[in-house]
Amino acid sequence: MIASHNPGKVIEIKALVNPFGIVVISSGELGLVEPEETGSTFAENARIKAEAAAMVADEPALSDDSGLCVAALDGAPGVFSARWAGPNRDFRAAMARIEAELKRNGAQDARAWFVCSLALAAPGQQTEIFEGRAFGTLIFPPRGTRGFGYDPIFVPENYRQTFGEMDPGLKHSISHRAKAFAKLVQSAFGAP
Amino acid sequence: MIASHNPGKVIEIKALVNPFGIVVISSGELGLVEPEETGSTFAENARIKAEAAAMVADEPALSDDSGLCVAALDGAPGVFSARWAGPNRDFRAAMARIEAELKRNGAQDARAWFVCSLALAAPGQQTEIFEGRAFGTLIFPPRGTRGFGYDPIFVPENYRQTFGEMDPGLKHSISHRAKAFAKLVQSAFGAP
Repeated sequence: MIASHNPGKVIEIKALVNPFGIVVISSGELGLVEPEETGSTFAENARIKAEAAAMVADEPALSDDSGLCVAALDGAPGVFSARWAGPNRDFRAAMARIEAELKRNGAQDARAWFVCSLALAAPGQQTEIFEGRAFGTLIFPPRGTRGFGYDPIFVPENYRQTFGEMDPGLKHSISHRAKAFAKLVQSAFGAP
Repeated sequence: MIASHNPGKVIEIKALVNPFGIVVISSGELGLVEPEETGSTFAENARIKAEAAAMVADEPALSDDSGLCVAALDGAPGVFSARWAGPNRDFRAAMARIEAELKRNGAQDARAWFVCSLALAAPGQQTEIFEGRAFGTLIFPPRGTRGFGYDPIFVPENYRQTFGEMDPGLKHSISHRAKAFAKLVQSAFGAP
């Protein structure tokens, strides 16, 4: 089970685990209530969600906590990435807020990175955490309608398109989520 | 008035503004209640504290929000820096947690930076924010008994001592707090 209510994340996770023949059911589809994300790191939030789902469902659960860290904002929005978009998941507003905070700062530094922390929890077992990062730079105004969240302002290093413009297959091969999944797969099935 | 209940911060702020002949009273000394720090950035928290103090006291108030950002922890503890030390301000435990999280990560990157965000609020005026950063690397185990908070694990760039070992006068000339104050002074009195 995937402990996530975020449709964009669930679609990406399904695409990533599809080649392994794993059937994915999201906690939203199961009707489970998402616990409060009270952690101060991505790993802590991923752990909270996976352990809550594993306990309620009494089966292994995989959760994803992810977000965008902006260097000139000391890592913000970070674990607050979803909250900056508010209850209506308004990421246009959240991207505009990043632009405004950088302007207020007079920031010259456009570096940013996405983080994905995956937690794999199972009843009676130690939870495992796998993390991936994608480094890049921010660009304004937002570009592209693919992906979700902050994708339209993020240009991954070595590429010219934003995650919002990029072919989903390419994004899934270089993203923070792909890197975290690669670590999970390597841990589960051994080194390739 | 200084909107801070943290004795270490108040001592440093007094030392920094002393040369300007400014008398400093902390909000703790005045018996004001510290508002909840609900912000997701240092600037937001500094603003919350200064505006609350200015409103209650009906006079200009200066507040300080600061913390340590660790590169390999995506900026954590960041705005959670005080909270990681818990209600007893146990920074030994907070420093041990940073060490443990870096080990769990297998992190090779020891870069970190302190941030100080000063907010100057006055009744009926726009609040002004001044920020300073001190970049450096982390070292374990902690060294030195001077300063406060995370000072004993932070070696500022171009120096070999931690902030916990360094002469306070030297620290006050290179710290994140000194840089933020330099911006405040420049804004208040013009360029030197």
